[in-house]
Amino acid sequence: MTVPPLPGVHPAWLPPEAFRAAGSRRVLVLTDPVGDLGGEALPGPVADLGGEALPGPVADLGGEALAATVRAEAAEACERHGGAVVAPGEPFDLVLALSSADALPPEAQAVREPEIGAEGFVLARHDDVTVVLADDPAGLLYGWFEVVRLGEAAFGEARPARAHRPALRRRMLDHWDNIDVHPVMGQVERGYSGGSIFWRDGAARGDLARVRAYARLLAATGVNAVAINNVNVHATEARLLTDRLGEVAAIAAELRPYGIRVHLSVNFASPIVLGGLDSADPLDEGVREWWARTTAHVYETIPDFGGYVVKADSEGQPGPFAYGRSHADGANMLADALAPHGGVVFWRAFVYNHRQDWRDRSTDRARAAHDHFAPLDGQFRDNAIVQVKYGPMDFQTREPVSPVIAAMPGTRLAVELQVTQEYTGQQRHVCYLGPMWSEVLGFRFWGPGERTVADVAAGGGLTAVSNVGDDPYWTGHPLAQANLYAFGRLAWAPDLDPAAILDEWIGLTFPGGPGLVRATLHEMMDGSWETYERYTAPLGVGFMVRPGHHYGPDVDGYEYTPWGTYHFADRDGVGVDRTRATGTGYTGQYPAPWSEVYESLAECPDELLLFFHHVPYEHVLQSGSTVVQHIYDTHFAGAEEAAAMRLAWEKLAGSVDEALYARVKERLDEQVRCAEEWRDQVNTYFLRKSGVPDAHGRPIH
Amino acid sequence: MTVPPLPGVHPAWLPPEAFRAAGSRRVLVLTDPVGDLGGEALPGPVADLGGEALPGPVADLGGEALAATVRAEAAEACERHGGAVVAPGEPFDLVLALSSADALPPEAQAVREPEIGAEGFVLARHDDVTVVLADDPAGLLYGWFEVVRLGEAAFGEARPARAHRPALRRRMLDHWDNIDVHPVMGQVERGYSGGSIFWRDGAARGDLARVRAYARLLAATGVNAVAINNVNVHATEARLLTDRLGEVAAIAAELRPYGIRVHLSVNFASPIVLGGLDSADPLDEGVREWWARTTAHVYETIPDFGGYVVKADSEGQPGPFAYGRSHADGANMLADALAPHGGVVFWRAFVYNHRQDWRDRSTDRARAAHDHFAPLDGQFRDNAIVQVKYGPMDFQTREPVSPVIAAMPGTRLAVELQVTQEYTGQQRHVCYLGPMWSEVLGFRFWGPGERTVADVAAGGGLTAVSNVGDDPYWTGHPLAQANLYAFGRLAWAPDLDPAAILDEWIGLTFPGGPGLVRATLHEMMDGSWETYERYTAPLGVGFMVRPGHHYGPDVDGYEYTPWGTYHFADRDGVGVDRTRATGTGYTGQYPAPWSEVYESLAECPDELLLFFHHVPYEHVLQSGSTVVQHIYDTHFAGAEEAAAMRLAWEKLAGSVDEALYARVKERLDEQVRCAEEWRDQVNTYFLRKSGVPDAHGRPIH
Repeated sequence: MTVPPLPGVHPAWLPPEAFRAAGSRRVLVLTDPVGDLGGEALPGPVADLGGEALPGPVADLGGEALAATVRAEAAEACERHGGAVVAPGEPFDLVLALSSADALPPEAQAVREPEIGAEGFVLARHDDVTVVLADDPAGLLYGWFEVVRLGEAAFGEARPARAHRPALRRRMLDHWDNIDVHPVMGQVERGYSGGSIFWRDGAARGDLARVRAYARLLAATGVNAVAINNVNVHATEARLLTDRLGEVAAIAAELRPYGIRVHLSVNFASPIVLGGLDSADPLDEGVREWWARTTAHVYETIPDFGGYVVKADSEGQPGPFAYGRSHADGANMLADALAPHGGVVFWRAFVYNHRQDWRDRSTDRARAAHDHFAPLDGQFRDNAIVQVKYGPMDFQTREPVSPVIAAMPGTRLAVELQVTQEYTGQQRHVCYLGPMWSEVLGFRFWGPGERTVADVAAGGGLTAVSNVGDDPYWTGHPLAQANLYAFGRLAWAPDLDPAAILDEWIGLTFPGGPGLVRATLHEMMDGSWETYERYTAPLGVGFMVRPGHHYGPDVDGYEYTPWGTYHFADRDGVGVDRTRATGTGYTGQYPAPWSEVYESLAECPDELLLFFHHVPYEHVLQSGSTVVQHIYDTHFAGAEEAAAMRLAWEKLAGSVDEALYARVKERLDEQVRCAEEWRDQVNTYFLRKSGVPDAHGRPIH
Repeated sequence: MTVPPLPGVHPAWLPPEAFRAAGSRRVLVLTDPVGDLGGEALPGPVADLGGEALPGPVADLGGEALAATVRAEAAEACERHGGAVVAPGEPFDLVLALSSADALPPEAQAVREPEIGAEGFVLARHDDVTVVLADDPAGLLYGWFEVVRLGEAAFGEARPARAHRPALRRRMLDHWDNIDVHPVMGQVERGYSGGSIFWRDGAARGDLARVRAYARLLAATGVNAVAINNVNVHATEARLLTDRLGEVAAIAAELRPYGIRVHLSVNFASPIVLGGLDSADPLDEGVREWWARTTAHVYETIPDFGGYVVKADSEGQPGPFAYGRSHADGANMLADALAPHGGVVFWRAFVYNHRQDWRDRSTDRARAAHDHFAPLDGQFRDNAIVQVKYGPMDFQTREPVSPVIAAMPGTRLAVELQVTQEYTGQQRHVCYLGPMWSEVLGFRFWGPGERTVADVAAGGGLTAVSNVGDDPYWTGHPLAQANLYAFGRLAWAPDLDPAAILDEWIGLTFPGGPGLVRATLHEMMDGSWETYERYTAPLGVGFMVRPGHHYGPDVDGYEYTPWGTYHFADRDGVGVDRTRATGTGYTGQYPAPWSEVYESLAECPDELLLFFHHVPYEHVLQSGSTVVQHIYDTHFAGAEEAAAMRLAWEKLAGSVDEALYARVKERLDEQVRCAEEWRDQVNTYFLRKSGVPDAHGRPIH
C-alpha cells in the first residue's frame, strides 16, 4: 500500500528520516468502522472529499483505501525506525483515530468535537500522548502527515487540541502532459522536468510506481485532486474520455489511496471529434445526451472520478462561441452531465483575443477575462467552477490580482497558480514562489478586514499547473520542489507564512544536515522571487521574454505581436496606461479601494506602476528613485543577488548529496549567466531608449 | 529520353508552346562521331564539361547521353509542331551539328571556328538556314535551348555567326534537402516550395521523373551542376557517401542526359561517423586513405560524379579546427581524394563565430570570412574551390560584395547566391533577384574598367541555394520561377541585362498571352527587389527579421543575440561603424577605391550607409533626405508598391490560368499584409526611438 523508495528517484520531502519521530513510537491506529478489509480499495461508505455539499451522490471508493494507507504508513514507519503499531488496550505514544471508531481511548475522547468535518483533523498532546482524531480517513491521513511534519515536536510539550481544516475545498494540480510528444510543445507543455510521470511512448506508463509516489508527496502537502492531461487537448488525448478510459482508471487507482481524485482535461469539440456528431452546441439535445452518456460511462469505470477541466474558446481551442453560446452555456452543459455523479467542471476563464493588432491601443488583454466572465455571474451551475488565473495576463512574475475574482460573487471560483516556472525561470532559476502566492491569496479586494482571495475561492478551490516530470528530482531543479510543496500547504492553509513553509520543506528534505545547509537554503530561497523580479521585466510591466519558449530576455520580443503583451517603451517613457482617465479603463474592473489606488499615479504601488501607468523615465517612484534609475539599480542588484546565491551554494559542497549539489550548481551557473543577460539587455535597452546614464556609472552596453 | 509533360506540374519556362518555332521547321541533327547509339548513356569519349583543364582524367558518361538528348528534343518538338527531323542531304531550316561531324553542310562549315570550346556553341543564320555548331554535345544542347529561347526570331533575319561560351565554368544549384524531415528545419532547409524533389519518406523518391524535368529546365538556363543534399549533413544524409550511394547514382542518371553533374554535401567528420575511425584529422594518413578509398568507390559507381560540398567549422558543423588544422588542410584533403577522378570540392567560406557576445562591439561578423580565408590564399589545391557568399553576412536583401572575393587571387573561387528567398520574402513575396545578382556579378573591386566579380569567379563558378521543391509550381510562388531562370542565365552570361532575362522568362512562361499579361508581369517584377528592400531593413543595415524562421519584421529580433547581426539603434542614431577610423576596420578588407569609398561618410552609397556607418537620425543622405525621413518614406512607399502590385495582378484575372492566378493572388495578399506589418513596425520603432515625426504626418503607431 505504501510507497517503497524508488531507485534513482529523489524522495523529496518524504525521506525515510522524516518518519523517525513517529516511527520510533508506539502507534495506535483506530479506523473502524470503515472496516479493516485489507489494503485494496473496495466500495464503502461515502466520505465527501469537499467541505460543502454538492448536488448528487458522491461515489467514494477511497474511504477504506485511505484508512488502509494510514495503517500502512504507520506500520512502515514503525518497522523502519523501531517503533510499533499497537493493539487497542496496549500503551501508545500516538493515536490516529476516526471519531466514529469503537473503543476510543480516553485521550482521544477528550478532544472530540461535534464536527471536525471532511478532511479535517484535531491534533493534541496531553498526558504524554499525541492524538490525531478525524471524521474521515482523509483527515486521518492529513493528520498523520502533520505529525510527520512536526517530527519530535509532535512528542514534546503538551499541545492544546486544535482542529485543522482545509481552507479550500479543492486543492488541485493540473498536468499539461501530452500522451504523444507534441512537435512544438514536447511531452509536457511548459514542462521543465523531463517527460511525463503518467505517459510514455503514446500510452499510460506500464509502471505507475512513480504516480503512487507522487500521490503520497502531494497528500503530505494537502493536495486532493489532479488533472492528468494538457488543457490543450490534442487528438490522442481527447480519447482518454472514451476508448482510452482504462488508462485513466489505472492512474486513478494509484492516486486513490492518497485521497487524490483524478480529473480529465476534455476537448469541447469531443461530440464531434469522438462522437461523430456534427455539432458541439451545448444547447443541442444530442450533444447534451452524448456528454451525459459519456460521463456516465466514465463514472461506471471510475466511480470517484473528479470531473473535467476545460479550456474553451482560448488560443485556438474550440468552445461555445462557435454556436453563439456563452461560456455559461458551455460549462453548464458539462456540469449537468457531471452532476448526477457528484463531479465538477473546472472551466477556465483564460479567454482573450490572441490575434490582437498591436497598433490598437484601446484593446487591452488584461480586461478580457473580466469582460467575458463578469457578466455571466450567477449563470453557472453549482458544480461548474470558473477557474481564474491569479493575474489578468498570464502567470507573470508580478501582476495585480485578477479582478475577475472579485466580480463573480454568485459563482464558484477556483484561483489558478503556476507551479511550473514558465515565466519565472523554468526551473533553471531558483525562484521560490511561496511569497507571491501568499500575497495573492491574502489580497483583500474590498480593503483591510474584508475577505481575502482565499476566502473567495474557499468553495471553489486553488489549482496550479504542476512542475513535476520524470526527472530524478521530480522538478528538474531540486530546489523547485519547494514550490510544489508550498502550493499544497498554501492550498490547505493560505494564511501560513511562506517563509515558515520554506523552512518546513528544508527541514523535511534535508533532515539531519548541518545547520549551515538549512540556513543557506533559507537565505538563497526566501527572497529569490524578488531577486528574479529584479533582474527581469521591471515594475510590473511583464513579459520582455523570448517569444515562444518564454525563457531569457527579449525586451521587444512581444512588442509588435498579436499577443496583447506590450510595454510601449519609447524615448520618453514606458508602461501601459490602464487608467479610466486616459487609458484602457482596466482599473475600473476593481472594486474600491483598489479601483482608486491603481488609478492614482501617486498611490499605485511601485511594483505595479508600469502595469497601470505609462510614465516618463524620470518619473519619481514612491521609493524616491526615478523609473529609469530603478531599472538600472534593480537589474544590477538582481544579477548580483544571483551571483551571491551561487557563492552561498558553493559553500555547501561536501555538505549535501553530491549529485544534488552538482545539479543545483549547474542550474545556478545558468541562472547567473541568464541574470547577467537580463541585466545587460534590459539596461542597454533603456539606456539606448532614454539616453539617461546610470547615476553610478556602471557599465551599460 | 526527353521529358513528357508531368501531370499536375507547371511546365515553367518550357511549355510545349516554347518549342513551336523550332518544332515547326525541318531540323538536321549531326552528332557523329559520338555515335548514334540510342537514347541511353554509355561510356564514350570524354568531353570535359569545364572551361579549363583540371588535373586528372575526367570521366564523362554524358557525351552520348547529351547527344541523344539533343536528337530527342528536336524529334519531339517536330512531332508536336509539325516540323521534321531530316536526314543528311535533305533540305533543312535548322542544323544542330558537332564541329567534328562527318559531312557538315556548307552552311555549318562556313561558321566553323578553331575552338568553340567546352559547352560553347556558335549560332548563325544565313541563306535562310539557322546553324548551331558546337565542339561537344553539351554545347549543342545549350545551342538548342538558345534557339528555343529565340523562337521565331531564330528564323527571321540573317545573324552573323556568334560564339556563345559560358562565362563561368561551374554553374551550380545547391539543394538544402534532407532525406529525413528535420524536426526544426523540415525536409528542405530554408525551403518554401514543399518537399524535396529528390527525397521522400526517408529515401530517394521512387519516381524521379520530376528530377529529369528539373534537369531539363536547368539545362535550358545553362546550369551544369547540382548538389542534392543539405550542407548541414545530418546522420542519415551522411550515409549517401557510402552505403546509400545507390540513391545518388539513381539521381545522377536523371541529371546526366541534361549535362548536369551530381554533387554531394559531405560531413567533415565522415571518417568517424561512417568509417569508424577515431579522428577526422585531415593530415592523418588513415583519414586521408579513408577519403581516398571512399571517393574511389563513389567514382566507380558514378564515373562523372562532380564532387563534394562542405560546410565545416560553421554553425556547429565539424571541421579541421578540432585538429588544429586550417581550412586549406581540410579542403586539400578532400581535393586530393577527388583529384584522380577529376572531381572538385566546394569548400564554403561561411565561417564565423555564431556565439558572439552582443556587448562586444569590436567583434564583427562581416570580417570573419576574410579574416579566416584571405591568409590562406595560395594554399588550396587547384581542384579545391572556396565558395564565398556574395556578401559578408548572410544573403541579406542588400549587402556590400564580400571582400573575400577580391582577396584570394591564388585560389579558385565560387560565388554563392541564394535563389531560395530566405531573407527576401520566402516565396510569399514577389522579389525578382536578377538585378541584385547582376549588380554583384558586375561589381568591380578595383574600380572602373577592372575585373568584375564574375571575372574573378570564372574559373571557379557561380553557385546558389535552389528554391525548388515538389510544389506544383516548382517554387511555391509561381513568379519565383523567374529567379531560378535568371540564376542560370546569369551564371552563363553575367553581363546579360536582368530586365531582358525577365522578359525572356515571361515570354517563355506565358507564351501567346495578351500583351497586357507580359507588360503587367514586367511592371510587377522588374523593380520588386527594390520594393522589398524599401519596406524591410533600411539602408543596408540588414536583418530585423523574426529570429529562427527569418520571415516578417522584428527590429530588435537579433539585436541582443549571439549571431553578430546588429543595428545598434539608440535614441540618437543607428548603424554599424565598420570604418577603420572609429569602427571595426572592416572597410580595410576592400582594395582601393572601395576601401576609401566605404570609409567615407560622404561617399558611401546611401543604400549601404548603415552597413558601414553609425549615424544620427538627422544625418542627410546623398539623396537629400534625412536617415529617419528616408526610413519613413521608403517604408510607406514600399508598402504602397506592394499594394500596387496586387492591384496590377488583379487586372489579369481571366487572362492567365485560373489556378496560377489564384496562387499568385493569395501570395500577394500575404505580401501586402506583411509589407504593411514591416512598414508599421519599422516606422513605429524608429519614431519611438528618435522622436522625430514624419514630415508628412502619416500614421505611425
